[in-house]
Amino acid sequence: MSNYTEVGSIAAETPVNSRSMSGLRCLVLGGGGFLGTNLSNALAADGAEVQAFGRSTSYPDSLDQRIVWTAGVFGDAEALAKAVAGQDVVFHLISGSVPESSNREPAADLAANGLTTLHLLEICRAERIRKIVFTSSGGTVYGIPTRIPIPETAPTDPIAAYGINKLVIEKYLALYRRLYDIDFQVLRVANPYGRFQVGYKKQGVVAAMLQRAINHEPLEIWGTGEVVRDFIHVDDVVAALIEGFYYDGPHKVMNVGSGIGLSVNQVVHHIEAVLGAGPLRVIRRPGRVADVPVNVLDITLITQ
Amino acid sequence: MSNYTEVGSIAAETPVNSRSMSGLRCLVLGGGGFLGTNLSNALAADGAEVQAFGRSTSYPDSLDQRIVWTAGVFGDAEALAKAVAGQDVVFHLISGSVPESSNREPAADLAANGLTTLHLLEICRAERIRKIVFTSSGGTVYGIPTRIPIPETAPTDPIAAYGINKLVIEKYLALYRRLYDIDFQVLRVANPYGRFQVGYKKQGVVAAMLQRAINHEPLEIWGTGEVVRDFIHVDDVVAALIEGFYYDGPHKVMNVGSGIGLSVNQVVHHIEAVLGAGPLRVIRRPGRVADVPVNVLDITLITQ
Repeated sequence: MSNYTEVGSIAAETPVNSRSMSGLRCLVLGGGGFLGTNLSNALAADGAEVQAFGRSTSYPDSLDQRIVWTAGVFGDAEALAKAVAGQDVVFHLISGSVPESSNREPAADLAANGLTTLHLLEICRAERIRKIVFTSSGGTVYGIPTRIPIPETAPTDPIAAYGINKLVIEKYLALYRRLYDIDFQVLRVANPYGRFQVGYKKQGVVAAMLQRAINHEPLEIWGTGEVVRDFIHVDDVVAALIEGFYYDGPHKVMNVGSGIGLSVNQVVHHIEAVLGAGPLRVIRRPGRVADVPVNVLDITLITQ
Repeated sequence: MSNYTEVGSIAAETPVNSRSMSGLRCLVLGGGGFLGTNLSNALAADGAEVQAFGRSTSYPDSLDQRIVWTAGVFGDAEALAKAVAGQDVVFHLISGSVPESSNREPAADLAANGLTTLHLLEICRAERIRKIVFTSSGGTVYGIPTRIPIPETAPTDPIAAYGINKLVIEKYLALYRRLYDIDFQVLRVANPYGRFQVGYKKQGVVAAMLQRAINHEPLEIWGTGEVVRDFIHVDDVVAALIEGFYYDGPHKVMNVGSGIGLSVNQVVHHIEAVLGAGPLRVIRRPGRVADVPVNVLDITLITQ
């Protein structure tokens, strides 16, 4: 499925094409974003009837023509109910914030994410949705790790409101399964990169650096550049999300990463090697309080 | 401090009277309720300047005359800000729901508890509050335990929205400490009983059964009565809350319980023994979905 298997491969372990998605009605919330566009296209290619819902599409014409695109905001309960109606499965990829901004107004952040997801769950309950697949955050739910790589059973002590919201949503998904038998799968995704990632938002360091390098602008690095992250190609994340729909085992929460740590400075060296134009200029910015020093996921569970 | 030390004692380990609360300005949110009334009176007796804030007082005239009582609802940001102004420490004991009711409207429950507590945290930040002591729930944050007794490091998978909110608040307290240096202590309290507990609400099985027994009414038991709980006298809880204010060690989350499990049926036998009037009549009701089968807390941390 993916050619990007140098840093660990999930796709190789999950032969999703052996099962058919033909006719399955899928709603992708956040379907115009980076992960959402890639997922929507993969689902459509597999034969699913896909509706993508979101504020906007990051790249015009990036969505497969078979996909029904609906522009709407997550907080609009009426638009959301209309989008969920008649679906079989909901892929919940929407987030109203990024780690750094979430700490600025935590109350607004909780209202926009945790609380709005509860409204979504009520709609899913009324519409008898079979399963919800949720992209949690492997990079933020654990906070500062006590050991590396981080297994799913590690303590969850986020240092950003963003991560608290992801955790809250995980807990409510489990509650709704218990109370109303709506199945779910939580995927704690590491730092994805790849096609349709935009370089101008505050997430997506790989795209941001590539874009600046191509434009002959200096790269921006927050802090020393020694923070270590677990980078995973978007095709592997998409494979995990689709597998998350099929999977019906006991592990409702799974890490999705490469299992390999790279510092931001190492990523810069990789980009220099790929571009082959010598050392890139770098501007160093102050470190960000919501950045954990290291995050590498234990992917034993999803790859076994 | 307490005479109720048969089932484990915290009070014996925490000589709170060796330090003075003289002149310390304390706000007790939920100060008219069961725990809040007992805490407010203890703080006032220790010389603190106490303001108790809440919807109503469970027992008229139960609050010490030195305490300033303010009637107000937690969701009223203006009333809350007024109550917090000028305080040194906030004891956060308010909850807008009980486990069973919380599952009926989880979105309203999150708005009333988690979200309103974020508004409280913003107020505490503006008012430069020194410390927040929060009563979390040892009976619900863990969900169905994987081992007994339950240590603080056990998985937290609540089966009631009530427990999810307690957990969410714990996470935001840690975030606010990190971002704004507001100190906090979380106490995960088991099933308290004792003076000023009311028997007519859906919490407080001991008071409820005692009241019905005294009124010659049949006791009500939900399910088989074999659910096991960790009962702790309110004086021990109050001692832990006050100790929670003084404590400045690394353990920001602590269980508060007796460490001993009793089934509801065993509690009935204890009540029969105390009243000495022979077997009590019991009506059995259907089990409740938000009830975990067993909950006994590991109290090693707080008693060591």
